[in-house]
Parts: sequence; C-alpha cells; structure tokens
Amino acid sequence: MTYVSFPDTRKMDFTAIGRLCIDLNANEINRPMEETMTFTKYVGGSPANITIGMSRLGMETAFIGKIANDQMGRFINSYLERNGIDTSNVVTDDTGAVTGLAFTEIKSPTDCSILMYRDHVADLLLQSREVQEQLIADSKVLLISGTALAKSPSREAVFQALAYAKKHGTIIVFDLDYRPYTWTSAEETAVYYNLAAEKCDIILGTREEFDMMETFDHNPDHSDQVTAQKWFDFSAKIVIIKHGKEGSIAYTGEGLSHQADSYPARVVKTFGAGDSYAAGFLYGLMQGWTIERSMAFGSAAASIVISSHSCSDAMPTVEQVNDYIERCNRGEITVS
Amino acid sequence: MTYVSFPDTRKMDFTAIGRLCIDLNANEINRPMEETMTFTKYVGGSPANITIGMSRLGMETAFIGKIANDQMGRFINSYLERNGIDTSNVVTDDTGAVTGLAFTEIKSPTDCSILMYRDHVADLLLQSREVQEQLIADSKVLLISGTALAKSPSREAVFQALAYAKKHGTIIVFDLDYRPYTWTSAEETAVYYNLAAEKCDIILGTREEFDMMETFDHNPDHSDQVTAQKWFDFSAKIVIIKHGKEGSIAYTGEGLSHQADSYPARVVKTFGAGDSYAAGFLYGLMQGWTIERSMAFGSAAASIVISSHSCSDAMPTVEQVNDYIERCNRGEITVS
Amino acid sequence: MTYVSFPDTRKMDFTAIGRLCIDLNANEINRPMEETMTFTKYVGGSPANITIGMSRLGMETAFIGKIANDQMGRFINSYLERNGIDTSNVVTDDTGAVTGLAFTEIKSPTDCSILMYRDHVADLLLQSREVQEQLIADSKVLLISGTALAKSPSREAVFQALAYAKKHGTIIVFDLDYRPYTWTSAEETAVYYNLAAEKCDIILGTREEFDMMETFDHNPDHSDQVTAQKWFDFSAKIVIIKHGKEGSIAYTGEGLSHQADSYPARVVKTFGAGDSYAAGFLYGLMQGWTIERSMAFGSAAASIVISSHSCSDAMPTVEQVNDYIERCNRGEITVS
Amino acid sequence: MTYVSFPDTRKMDFTAIGRLCIDLNANEINRPMEETMTFTKYVGGSPANITIGMSRLGMETAFIGKIANDQMGRFINSYLERNGIDTSNVVTDDTGAVTGLAFTEIKSPTDCSILMYRDHVADLLLQSREVQEQLIADSKVLLISGTALAKSPSREAVFQALAYAKKHGTIIVFDLDYRPYTWTSAEETAVYYNLAAEKCDIILGTREEFDMMETFDHNPDHSDQVTAQKWFDFSAKIVIIKHGKEGSIAYTGEGLSHQADSYPARVVKTFGAGDSYAAGFLYGLMQGWTIERSMAFGSAAASIVISSHSCSDAMPTVEQVNDYIERCNRGEITVS
Repeated sequence: MTYVSFPDTRKMDFTAIGRLCIDLNANEINRPMEETMTFTKYVGGSPANITIGMSRLGMETAFIGKIANDQMGRFINSYLERNGIDTSNVVTDDTGAVTGLAFTEIKSPTDCSILMYRDHVADLLLQSREVQEQLIADSKVLLISGTALAKSPSREAVFQALAYAKKHGTIIVFDLDYRPYTWTSAEETAVYYNLAAEKCDIILGTREEFDMMETFDHNPDHSDQVTAQKWFDFSAKIVIIKHGKEGSIAYTGEGLSHQADSYPARVVKTFGAGDSYAAGFLYGLMQGWTIERSMAFGSAAASIVISSHSCSDAMPTVEQVNDYIERCNRGEITVS
Repeated sequence: MTYVSFPDTRKMDFTAIGRLCIDLNANEINRPMEETMTFTKYVGGSPANITIGMSRLGMETAFIGKIANDQMGRFINSYLERNGIDTSNVVTDDTGAVTGLAFTEIKSPTDCSILMYRDHVADLLLQSREVQEQLIADSKVLLISGTALAKSPSREAVFQALAYAKKHGTIIVFDLDYRPYTWTSAEETAVYYNLAAEKCDIILGTREEFDMMETFDHNPDHSDQVTAQKWFDFSAKIVIIKHGKEGSIAYTGEGLSHQADSYPARVVKTFGAGDSYAAGFLYGLMQGWTIERSMAFGSAAASIVISSHSCSDAMPTVEQVNDYIERCNRGEITVS
Repeated sequence: MTYVSFPDTRKMDFTAIGRLCIDLNANEINRPMEETMTFTKYVGGSPANITIGMSRLGMETAFIGKIANDQMGRFINSYLERNGIDTSNVVTDDTGAVTGLAFTEIKSPTDCSILMYRDHVADLLLQSREVQEQLIADSKVLLISGTALAKSPSREAVFQALAYAKKHGTIIVFDLDYRPYTWTSAEETAVYYNLAAEKCDIILGTREEFDMMETFDHNPDHSDQVTAQKWFDFSAKIVIIKHGKEGSIAYTGEGLSHQADSYPARVVKTFGAGDSYAAGFLYGLMQGWTIERSMAFGSAAASIVISSHSCSDAMPTVEQVNDYIERCNRGEITVS
Repeated sequence: MTYVSFPDTRKMDFTAIGRLCIDLNANEINRPMEETMTFTKYVGGSPANITIGMSRLGMETAFIGKIANDQMGRFINSYLERNGIDTSNVVTDDTGAVTGLAFTEIKSPTDCSILMYRDHVADLLLQSREVQEQLIADSKVLLISGTALAKSPSREAVFQALAYAKKHGTIIVFDLDYRPYTWTSAEETAVYYNLAAEKCDIILGTREEFDMMETFDHNPDHSDQVTAQKWFDFSAKIVIIKHGKEGSIAYTGEGLSHQADSYPARVVKTFGAGDSYAAGFLYGLMQGWTIERSMAFGSAAASIVISSHSCSDAMPTVEQVNDYIERCNRGEITVS
C-alpha cells in the first residue's frame, strides 16, 4: 500500500534546504588526527550528501542554501552543479562568513570522530526572504535538516520553507541530524525540532534524537510506539527510528512497523551511512516501492558509502546499488 | 452564540506569559521629556497590564515571567501580589539582568512616545524549562504577548507554553504587541508570529501588526477578511483587528464581523488603551456575553485608563467600568 | 612649593573625557528603593560631575564625550551648556545607543547604593577619531576617568586623548573611578589602568582601587608609599590615596605625604563626595595653593555636596565653599 | 658597534608570545584553491614560525600561547616540543575554542593568498594571568606579534608580558604582523600598536604597517626617518622598515640607516619570508654581528624558506644558511 502520495506532476523530484560544508578527510587512516598530515577535500553536510545521493540515483534535484564568498564556497557550488543539482537557490553570502569545515578522524572503522569548524559559517546565514517559494511549489519533496534550525536566520529560513511546502502540498521529510555543539541547550533544540516536526510527513532519526525531542514529554520507556504516535497525531505518515546496530524501524500510521535486513560491508568508516540510507530509502518510496524494499535499497546504498573514503563522492547510482545487492546475495561481500 | 468554549472547571481564570517591566511616567506632562524633571514608577508591560486588569475585574489570575534580582524586580513582584496575582511562576533571574524600563513622554494627549531600555532585560531570559505545565493545565486562558517572542530563551519559553496549552485544551489568546526595536527584522518577526498564531484561539492586533505578519503572504489590499480567514484555517475562533480611531472589528469563523461603539474620554495619554481594552473584552467573553457587549465593556475600560496618568494602576474594577458606562450614557462624560 | 606646572597661557582651564549619564535620585529617602515611587533626574557620571564642579568654581571647562540621540542625551547636552561647559566635542551617537542611568537608593546617610543601567550606553561608544586634538592642545588639564576605559571604542578614545595630551604637554589627571560591573575581570582592568596611569601627572583613587591596579604587583602590605613610588617612576607628580573615613593622603615625588582636616557635614548621602573633592582640590592646585590648602578646599566642597540631594546640581561656587569653611570655623555646622 | 645590549647571562635566549595556528598548504600549486583537492598540515602563525626558526638556529627558545583542547592543538604542542621549544607556558584552552587555520593558495610564485579561519580561536584567549613572569625574567628577548593584540583577553596578556619585560630588562622585539581581518578598525589597531611600540627595543614592519600606526600622526610623505625617530623618542634602538621588493632598511638611533643585499631564490611562494628574515636577523644581532651582516643572514634564511612548500618546516639551521650564502656567492643559485 502507499503511505505517502507524492505530487507526481512536478518537475523537481527533490529539494533540500540546509547545511553545505567541506569535509576534510584524513588520508592517513587508522590513527589519531595528531598523526595525520594530509587531508582530502569533499563537499559535505547531511542535506548536501542526501541531495547528491538522490541526484546520483537519477532524481531531479535542487538545493536551497548559502555559501561563503570564497574558494571553498565556489568549490561547493561547482561540485553541486557538476552533479546535476539545481543551484539557482544557492545564495552567496556577502558578510564575510566562512565555509563550515569537518575534519574527520578515522582511528578505526568503529572509532571515528569529527572536528568541526562551525563559527560564523555561511550556511547558517540563509535568510527567510532568500527562500524561493516557486522552487518549493515545483518540488515533489522538501527535505529539511535539523542542523539548519540551530541558529537565526537559517532557523527562520527553514520555518518559512516549511510554510511554503505546507501551502503547496509538497511532501516534507525531516532528517533530524542533531549536532549538539551548534545549539545552546537541549531544551532550545527540543522546542524548535517539535515545531518543525509537527508539519512533516516523514521523519527520520535515531532513538537518541527522538529522546532529545521528548525533553518536555513523558515517555519514560523510550517507546518507539509512543514517539511515532505523537507525530501521527500531527502530520506524519512515516516515522523511521534508527537503533544503531540493531537496525532501523519504520512506523506507519496504522500502527504497523516495518524492518528490513541490512547488507554486509567492508567498513572503512561510519560517516555517511545515514545520508546514503536516507537517499536510497526516499528514492525507493518515490518509485512506489514497499517500505521494506525501500529500506533494503537504502541499506545497500549505506553499505557502499561506508566502504569508501568519502561520503558525498561515494554516493552510488541505481546500477551500483543493484549490483551491490546482487553481489551480497551471491555471498561475494562479507563483513571484513 | 458562543464562539469560544472556555474550560470552566479550572481554578485559574487567566494566566499570561511575557514582559514585566517598569514604566517611569513623567510627572510634568504636555512637554518634551528634555524638560521633565521627575518620574513616577509603575509596573508595566502589556501582558502585566492585562493581567492586572483581569485581576481588578475579579478574575483569578497568574503570571509566568522573569524578574531581575534587584529592587525593581522585587517591586514588580510585590505589586503583582498586592493585586492578587499568583506569582508562583514568576522566576528571579540570577545572571545580572536588569528590569526593562519605559520612560513615557506626553507632549500632548495625541503625541505620546516611549523611551525604552530593553538591553539585557530579565523578562527575555525566561527559559522553557521554567514554565510550569501544571499552571497552564489549571488555567482557562493563556495569554501570550508578541514581545516575549523577540529573543531566546523567552521565545522558546512561549512556544513551550503554547505546547502545554494545546495539550491541555487551554484557550490561547495572542496579543500581538509588536515592538520593532527588539527584533532583528520584520521577516524574523513574521516567521515566529505566524508559528505562534497558528495555535491560538483569539488573536488581537492592529492592522499594521497583521500586515507585518503577512510579509510572506499575498494580501495586497490589506483585507481584514483575508487576514482573518488565514487564521480560521488554523485554530482561531475570533480575530480582532484594530483600526486606530476608526475602531476595532472582531471577526468570527462564520464570516461575521462585529463592531461596538466606543466611549468618550478626557484623554491624558494614549498608553494603556489596548491593554485595558483586551482585559475588558476577555472578561466579557468569559462571562458568556456577546462579542458586541464584550467589546463595549473593553472600550469603556480603555476610556478610563487613557483618562489617567498611569496604565497598570488605573485598571478599573467592574463597578468602575459599569459606572463609567452609565455616566457616558447620561452624557456626563464628553471628549475634552 | 609647586608640584605641578600648568601650561598657563592656554584658553581652556580644564577638559574631561568620559562618562555622561543620568542620575535618577529617589525623592523618598531613608527607605529601600522598592518603596520609593518618584525619582528626580540629574546629569551624572564622575567626570561630568567634576567638570560641572570646576565650572561652578569659575574655571573655563570643556567635555569630550558621547550622548545618546534621545531626550536624555539632549537634556545632558543642554545642562552642560547652561553650566558654561564647552560641548563642541560632545558627539551624538547614531547607532541607537541609550543613556546610562544610575538609580540611587538612600536607605540611610551611610547606606547608599546604586542600580546601574550600563548596557549599550552611548558614552562607551566614543571613538578615537572623534577626539579633537586641538581642544586638548588648548587645555591646561585633561582629566580621564577609569570608567571610560571599560569598553571599546571608548577605551581607545581615552588612550588617544592621552597621546594628544602627552604630545602637547597638557597636565593629565586620572580619577580612577573603578566600577567593577562594566569590566570583564580585575586583571583586564589592572592592565588598562596601569597603561593609562603611566602617562598621568596626578592620580586620585581609593586604597581599594590602587589594590586592584596592583593585581600583578607585589605590595603585600598595601603600602601607600610603594604604590605612590611606582607612579613617580613613570610620570606622576602627585598621587592621592583615599582611605574612606580616615581621610585622604597626597603623596608627592620627594617622598612627602600631605593631609588636611575635613569639614563636618549634615550628611544626606555619600554620593558625589569624591567628585566634589576632586574639583575643589584641582581648583586649588591650579590657583597655586599648597597641597594642604587645596585638599581642605576639596573637603569643604565635598561636605557641601553630601549635605544635598543631588551631586551635579549641588556643586558649589568658590563663595559657597569659602562661606562653608567660615561657618565650620565658627562652629555653626556640626555633624548631624 | 652594538645597538642593543642583550642581558647575556639568562638561560633562555628567545621567548615569543602570540599566535599558534595550523597552515593547510595546498599540495597542488599554481592553480586556484577551487581546484586543489589535498592539503598538508603544518604549524603556523608568525611568532610560532620565528620561534621555530630561532630554535633551528640553535637558540634556547620558549613560547607563551594558548592552544585548543583538540587534535590540532595537541599537534602544535608536540611539534613545538620536537623542535626543542619550551612549552611550559603554552596553555590549553578549556572553553571549546578552535585552532586558527590558514589555507594557503599558490596561484603562482607571486600570486599567493590565504583563507583564514580566525573565529573563536584559542590563541586569542590567552589571559594576562596565564603569562609567566619568571619565564620573561629568564629570557634575553621577548618577541610580541601584532596579531595577538587584536582581541581581548590576548591583548591584555601581551600588555602584561610587556610590563614584565620592562620590569626585568628583557629586550623587546615587536613584529608588527598586521592582519586587518581580526581588527575592528584601523584606528583601534593604531591605538594599541602605538601603546605597545612605545615599550619596544626593536620594531620590524612594512611601510604599510607603519602607515597604519600613523593614523593619528602627521607624516604626509610617509618618511621612514620621521617614523623611526618617533620610536627612538620612546624606547626603540632599531626600527626596520620593509619596502617589499626594494628591500628592508634598518634605522638606528644615531640617524643611520643600514641596508643589505638580498639573495636569489627559486621562489615557490612568498609566505614565510618575513618570519625567516626576522629569525635570521635577530640571531645575527644576538651573536654581536653588525646590522648589515645580520640583515644578510636574515635575507638568506628568507630565500631558503620561500623556495620551499612550507614555512615552519623549512626554517633553516645555521649550516643551511651559511651553505646557501656560499652557493649564492659561487653563482649556483639564480632566480628561477
């Protein structure tokens, strides 16, 4: 059955709003960053990664965001364009802001961390008046990312994008993507995440992220059912709660929960797993696939990305995902 | 007919959240402030004034707010208590914030202005975690004031109060009270005013305030009907749009508009007219009166306040309002 | 003997730079401010008070400062002008800053406190480029006040004024006037106070203020001699250290210390004592009087001011000081 | 003759205070940064580079600064220690500050630029109370760098270090190193640079940097003689004014100017030229060499560094400098 009805006649499949930044991935891995000497530059940021992923999967995509007026900003813009993403609503900052940076440290496949530069970054300076209503009206899906809610004026830009999406019936996806270091307090985060989530059709996040959103609620057992039902009482059709290694569960309004097997991977690092999963899952849903098949497709896309050095650059095509699934099914890929 | 059903069995009639400050009213009036030498101190702030007004009218009232840990803060708290207002949710700041000040200048009855001190004020430091859910659950009405949305963390405190009110079925009144000097931009204001207004049952504001809220909308003729209908599509039951000297119009969901005559006054200054009107109108509504009768009662209360030197201190009792109406009807009070 | 040689041929006797603000003095005294209802407005700020004092004593005076573009700022400017003070270097702020306020509370003649409004005040926004070199070159004395060092850009304006004064041989007086609430830390204060004091000819402050300046020094016994000698090694000729009720001691380069009796007063409040003392003392010094006589004259001026409700408005003329001294000598004035 | 007498019996030759940061040098050179994909990490910051240079030249060195509590900060600290620099006064920040970054772009040997990350950096958070008086008392030379004056509390830490150096007779070197992007205005910069320069024995800067310092002065012809004389009237013994390609001129108190030939180089980039020059020149001066010989030695050190990919890592030993000079003298090195 169909849980979400996408407005099929629109020219743009997928538009995301939010963070655009630079990943600087250590070339020397399996050691602390104190000992790495060289870094490779990639476009990063969760909504950027998902959009690149959707574009690689053949979707018509666009991005709403703000870049610094410097070499890093121009690199981001040209990378998006080379990947077929519409950048007509990617605005250039004129106040001297910088591009957010994420230096990644891969001590081991399971011990990865990030050193962030998030002061005075351009992406958080997107203004509500800079969001193009027509682009959202022309899109089947608008994806918002929680990090863009962290500061004014980006926060207001996201709420205005939500208002446009509600007005025009664009399906709204909320990727929680909670990064505590850009927020003042968990309470502040919970208030704005809740205000945004009320308006969303599909919500994806970890159990810990939903716990943060329930700061003012009563859910002592951290029940997924209680969490999901809260959002069904607003606008949600699908709520996906991720439980780390135990896998993700998709809840739908009828009280059903859905799960899918994941695929093995020779893990290099864990970064990018969620973004590639989100792209694969949404792609499947927009093809009219079942939730289970969409989840499996997302899992395979995630396995490809975590086997690679980069996030954005490793986002697979449909053929690559299908090929990976087939190789897994033939037993050719096993956990390293 | 009844437009709003109040949850009648609750012990608290009316609770407001927001600004608490000090008015310093020039004792020497009808001259510029450069020439005034002495000032008298009153409790001020729109939601504080309305709450004092409701209390004078015999309602059980409470306030949710934050005061400075100084002589001004303690004066405010003791004044509220002397007026029978529950201050159990009036929190004292511990960060060195000051009390907001409003020096009033009365050059003539129609030429009044305010000199504001709003930097680092305690009232804008109320935190979401400090808002008592039980107090809102026990109240028939929660009034929010737009100025409390101007800055974090007070902004989040208001949104959390709205969440509690929605959860418990408390009737929500939104007094727009837009003061540009505490806001970054009209766009920022519009985004948060709209997010708040979506959840409100009764909205009161001037045509100019509603225009600001429509920054991102299309209402080229500034049509009251278009404005009111927008909010009826969310939660509103009554939208009151004030047109200055031409009077106020109340819109209700059925497409009806309501108006009432105003009462003459020997005007000293115009400050406080809106607050006393709001108190009188809400009082009437909570008595089950018609909208017209409630509006008339509010108008009479406003006429009393603008004939006086203070705002909060001049808020009338029911007897005083009725007496004023009778004297007007007998022709004893005419415009000065 | 003469300790300081003033450049006598200049047209301006005395120019001060720094804080201009408004005192709001409680009219109802001998009670906590929670219970005072009316306030009277005066010009305030230590360097403003001293300048008004010097002008009342017949000196040619000027002020270098910044006022808010509002009624309070205009009141200050007109009050200075009415008192014969040159305001050609009193600049009006154009950024929306406010006038600093000081609400005074007089619980008893010996228990007085101040409630300050110092956020976003105009006086701390004076810029170095706004300081007129010619005015300082034309003045016999430049007085700086420590509060003006508390924040940029006022801090830089004071250092630039000091540079001009050194260049032109203007005698520099430093009134320490340390107010902790406008400073980040005692260390920050000590650094800038020391940098400024190195360039000054006359330094006046309390023992506690000099202790703060010695944060990084070694003066375990809080020895006045050690303190004074430090500044004689730089530029100082006279260092006055105030010991509250025990009186003030003036140190001079030759290792001498000077003291003078004080005069009785029927004390209303203690505010303004230091400012009137400074004006009287400097007046005497500029007349070529001995240090002892100058100190006595300052003490008499102080006794007059603390017997009055205001600070600035109570600054006496030469005749009033002389008359007060005579009445004290005749035993007509005794401690209340 | 000897222009500066160093206090020769101290155990530490050279201590610097100020900026510690990370250079990220593009590995792919001669192209815009939009097209560079990988970067190599080095320790950077002008005073850090000079200290590393002094250490390579065999001097006993120490550093006074603050590092972030992260992988970048720990890398800096361990690099300094590996280079024999005393880090006992390198403090670790505990407020979540980041390490300053400088991405270098080498479009051509003569077209180099830097993309700076200077928001919320640890080095500007050094506090005056963290500066160790004993270390400065034990050092022959204290070098201060202008960038450390850009913000509080680092600004106060530098002024306190200057106070300690004056107290103990440590020779003070001021490397102007003016970077406009961290300053509010040229006026603010001029005020603090002048306050610092008054106390310095040796001042090195470009003509443009001295012009900035003369914002409030009268030197319409940008005369080096006027500039140098200003500082001789305070504490300076040597003032070096750099005129880019036309070379540097050293002025000494007796009205003499000194110049030295520079050495050819196969230039990769121009970064680091000034830092290696400063290290070489000061090394020579501390050996008791003539100013001309010291300048020549500095020039050769600079030629070595600009022929290399890095700054700090390329700082030469005495043998390398002497060898380079000999090879130049034999005509083995010519401009590329």
